[in-house]
Amino acid sequence: MKIALDVMGGDLAPFSNIEGAFSYIEETKDSATQLLLVGDKPTIEKAISKYPQFADNIQIIHTTEVVEMDEKPSRIFRTKPDSSLVRCIDLIKNGDADAAISAGNTGALLASSLFMLGKISGIRRPALAPFIPTEKGGVILCDAGANADVKPQHLVQFALMASAYLEVQENVKSPRVALINIGSEEGKGNELSRSAYPLLKGHIENFVGNIESRYFLNGDVDVIVCDGFTGNIILKLTEGLFKNITEFLKDSLSDNGTDVSQFMPILGNLKTKYDYEEHGGTPLLGINGIVMKCHGSSSKRSIKNAIIAVKKFHDANLINEIADRMSKHMDIFEENTTVNETQTA
Amino acid sequence: MKIALDVMGGDLAPFSNIEGAFSYIEETKDSATQLLLVGDKPTIEKAISKYPQFADNIQIIHTTEVVEMDEKPSRIFRTKPDSSLVRCIDLIKNGDADAAISAGNTGALLASSLFMLGKISGIRRPALAPFIPTEKGGVILCDAGANADVKPQHLVQFALMASAYLEVQENVKSPRVALINIGSEEGKGNELSRSAYPLLKGHIENFVGNIESRYFLNGDVDVIVCDGFTGNIILKLTEGLFKNITEFLKDSLSDNGTDVSQFMPILGNLKTKYDYEEHGGTPLLGINGIVMKCHGSSSKRSIKNAIIAVKKFHDANLINEIADRMSKHMDIFEENTTVNETQTA
Repeated sequence: MKIALDVMGGDLAPFSNIEGAFSYIEETKDSATQLLLVGDKPTIEKAISKYPQFADNIQIIHTTEVVEMDEKPSRIFRTKPDSSLVRCIDLIKNGDADAAISAGNTGALLASSLFMLGKISGIRRPALAPFIPTEKGGVILCDAGANADVKPQHLVQFALMASAYLEVQENVKSPRVALINIGSEEGKGNELSRSAYPLLKGHIENFVGNIESRYFLNGDVDVIVCDGFTGNIILKLTEGLFKNITEFLKDSLSDNGTDVSQFMPILGNLKTKYDYEEHGGTPLLGINGIVMKCHGSSSKRSIKNAIIAVKKFHDANLINEIADRMSKHMDIFEENTTVNETQTA
Repeated sequence: MKIALDVMGGDLAPFSNIEGAFSYIEETKDSATQLLLVGDKPTIEKAISKYPQFADNIQIIHTTEVVEMDEKPSRIFRTKPDSSLVRCIDLIKNGDADAAISAGNTGALLASSLFMLGKISGIRRPALAPFIPTEKGGVILCDAGANADVKPQHLVQFALMASAYLEVQENVKSPRVALINIGSEEGKGNELSRSAYPLLKGHIENFVGNIESRYFLNGDVDVIVCDGFTGNIILKLTEGLFKNITEFLKDSLSDNGTDVSQFMPILGNLKTKYDYEEHGGTPLLGINGIVMKCHGSSSKRSIKNAIIAVKKFHDANLINEIADRMSKHMDIFEENTTVNETQTA
């Protein structure tokens, strides 16, 4: 298998990305996988020169451009064709790589993947599906931001894709799927959730109903589906609150004259336990190719975990599996389930 | 002023509600305000018999029914007319009270208030506007759950109402209003937020743009507007995460063999600092009457604070103030700002 790694994308790039690749080789001893390090050749060569033992598993693809985190993403594949991010996708497109990993600009990665690789047969909307650690393991949140506005049918597809992914990645059999909502009973919520509920009930084997956001991290379900606006609000709020609380605790302990050092390991555990950045990346589910987005501040551990994840994705032939599942549920688009979007002001 | 207090509503009712009323009288020495305790007369009389010094400020309104927390709210005012909750609203309607406070069923309180008292002139959608403590004070989140689907114009009204309320309650001059969104630039987000942005910019004096949910508790803005679905997701997720994190820390400390007791005051401070339940209630803004919803698990302190809050609301004549502000912005409904709600599946 060949995995293209965007060496230049992310806040800690290029070194944390390169070191993530080295960690993968060192820890897994996986000599069958070739890592294509895509980025500035001199930088990569310099890093490799210190670790010649990894050279056999690595191939360098030199690029001259870098996509910045705040660049308008929609036309990056035209404006920066020789960026490390776009080249990673291009390698898949040309059959020179089986998967791509980037910690760069999410919108650019999504737009480039969608344009250059297209969608899996049957898929209407690709979605971001991060794995969020919970009290009892983890939950996939889908969509976490790719589609700000969706229709109920898209939520069914998100549920099918995320379930397939979770089965492969975490060996979860028949994942419990829930719909994020503002009440537990059927009939609660906004027009989208009210319309999506019966559709999910009819098409998702282990649909367990609505889940309120207060139970998000309790770990009682395996997949939570939502529109990308709501998912992104949830993801970023979770990140923000952890930061607020950790800082509050540190400040309180110092003000209190307590020896902060004894509590630091516990705050460290809190971060390790709940930090989804560490998990290894968010797949762009529905893209006709294996593309993994790592968090902007990905550590080498996160990059290494992302490589492990795309390998599982590839070995399980998940793209075909998703296409197969979609084909069994295409009737969602024929049922009379359009949302009534008219409202009186 | 006369304030009707639903004695039977809430998880800690009736005692915490009655004690909240006593606390108010004791702490404020406000002899000009009459508290109408609405609920089971024998229970209330028994409580008062122990504190005869409060009797002069209290009047008992006997009721025979109680609205349960899980009852369908929409027709409670017809099915349980002699419930403590409905009678509180009825007292306002008949001019026998100037305000009502309940820690009972939110939906029932909202539906009963809307049906029995109606809306302030010009208001299209009443909204829930909790005050959430932040790192630097607090922020009003509006709407936090009354309207699952809204139009951009409603968000402008939420901004106007919440700003007026914050000026009165917290003496915040010219509150900074932000739109919750999944990106900071104008043009980001879903159809609602993209359409609402220019409307807010045109009508809200101190509109500061989009705010991402990761900054929710940073305290850099005073009012955050959103649809009630998103607001409710944010509110409940915040509650849930605080619970998850506090429990994780307690467990980690015990497992660690650390003396948990020295850490407990800090966790207590965390709760006190960020716990919006303690603040004293959430106004039903836009209702043509002063109605305050307290959290279901309201303590006596929370009830006392709610009484203080409705008194400020009343003394500032906030209903007229809101009507006046609405009248200056009715052109939002004439502008060509309808959301394009058509989407291709």
